[in-house]
Amino acid sequence: MDNNSKIFGIRTVIEAINSGKTIDKVFLQKGLRGELFQELESLLRKEDINTSYVPVEKLNRLSSKNHQGVVALISPIEFYDLDNLVLNIIESGKNPLFLLLDQLSDVRNFGAIIRTAECTGVNGIIIQKKGGAPVNADTVKTSAGAVFKVPICKVDHIKDAMFHLQASGIKVIAATEKTENTLYDISFKEPCAIIMGSEGKGITPSILKLADDTAKLPLLGDIESLNVSVACGAFLYEVVRQRR
Amino acid sequence: MDNNSKIFGIRTVIEAINSGKTIDKVFLQKGLRGELFQELESLLRKEDINTSYVPVEKLNRLSSKNHQGVVALISPIEFYDLDNLVLNIIESGKNPLFLLLDQLSDVRNFGAIIRTAECTGVNGIIIQKKGGAPVNADTVKTSAGAVFKVPICKVDHIKDAMFHLQASGIKVIAATEKTENTLYDISFKEPCAIIMGSEGKGITPSILKLADDTAKLPLLGDIESLNVSVACGAFLYEVVRQRR
Repeated sequence: MDNNSKIFGIRTVIEAINSGKTIDKVFLQKGLRGELFQELESLLRKEDINTSYVPVEKLNRLSSKNHQGVVALISPIEFYDLDNLVLNIIESGKNPLFLLLDQLSDVRNFGAIIRTAECTGVNGIIIQKKGGAPVNADTVKTSAGAVFKVPICKVDHIKDAMFHLQASGIKVIAATEKTENTLYDISFKEPCAIIMGSEGKGITPSILKLADDTAKLPLLGDIESLNVSVACGAFLYEVVRQRR
Repeated sequence: MDNNSKIFGIRTVIEAINSGKTIDKVFLQKGLRGELFQELESLLRKEDINTSYVPVEKLNRLSSKNHQGVVALISPIEFYDLDNLVLNIIESGKNPLFLLLDQLSDVRNFGAIIRTAECTGVNGIIIQKKGGAPVNADTVKTSAGAVFKVPICKVDHIKDAMFHLQASGIKVIAATEKTENTLYDISFKEPCAIIMGSEGKGITPSILKLADDTAKLPLLGDIESLNVSVACGAFLYEVVRQRR
């Protein structure tokens, strides 16, 4: 986070949001009051921006300047609009391949997945606005710069993105242990999107239900799961193999 | 390293080595002299144990006890003898699959690779005694415990291990970008071993020359390499797919 661009001060943050800057997260001082502060709070709610109320000491560590109780982290990348991206990919004549990440939490895994996505021709990565690993300086580093090359879309809910993909003729395949199919039983030749779950919990059950198909990696030993970035790589390279 | 078992004191470390304990690394105080200290030094050389000469302050941080200028880290696992392991695997009637790691440096990658190896039925992982990531508490954690399930062999030189595998009828395949073959052009159905290189430099050229075959993962974007644990997973799952 240290290398993230930071902005501070109530009015500065309001203006950054209004000018369309992509804000990763806003830290607000606990217990602060005031008209301008409330204006910022309602703007953050309206724009559905990630916020966190913290003690003033945390803000002082984030910024040695006069932060007025507000420090915002600017995202190093601009996010794509899902509807436009899907439309562009379909119109370009490419065979769509998307990746949905359901609450992935580890920044190093996230970076490695973005890097693999770039190497395997993924057209876009879809993450949820809230709850997952952020796109920050560590993500940029572990992605080997791929974060600047693969379009990333932030959506309110993964489910809405799934409906949109499905309505666009893109099959959604969930990578999960809770299935009998291995990934070798599934065809990835048609337009498709793969969902990967979080490190601890896998894919949210209500999201899993909405998938068109499910597939697992065979596990030949006693350990019950792989590292998520390794599993994602094995799935994406199976897509590459089938689509050669 | 904090959670590694440590032993200290000159005579204690000599006795641990003589009793066959697996020592990961020994830290020795710079500039120390004395008969017993020299006895330890020659034993370390004889047994080819990883050593590092450090200032006394480093030793004081490693142990608050009376370390006498010597702190040794005990490995959390026992290593296997390669000759016996290869013989056992062949005699058991299994189709051998080995993994050679040439100077992998990142502990998290090492852990993820051990975990993937357990999940894909790898019979043994071969690392070089010196220069690579250690088997320590972080390796144990990132391997999800797989480090206790997959045999790991430490050899003086990766090349000697390659000769031994080849003499045992096991084909050695190098994972490298420096080839025209993709991994889909290669048969992994026969007894084989896969070599993965280090994060920065890939496989040492003199080792690469000795491989029976080479294979790369197709890279469809601009980024020139994958994370090594992701690449290793894609290779091992191609073996699983072909051997089903």
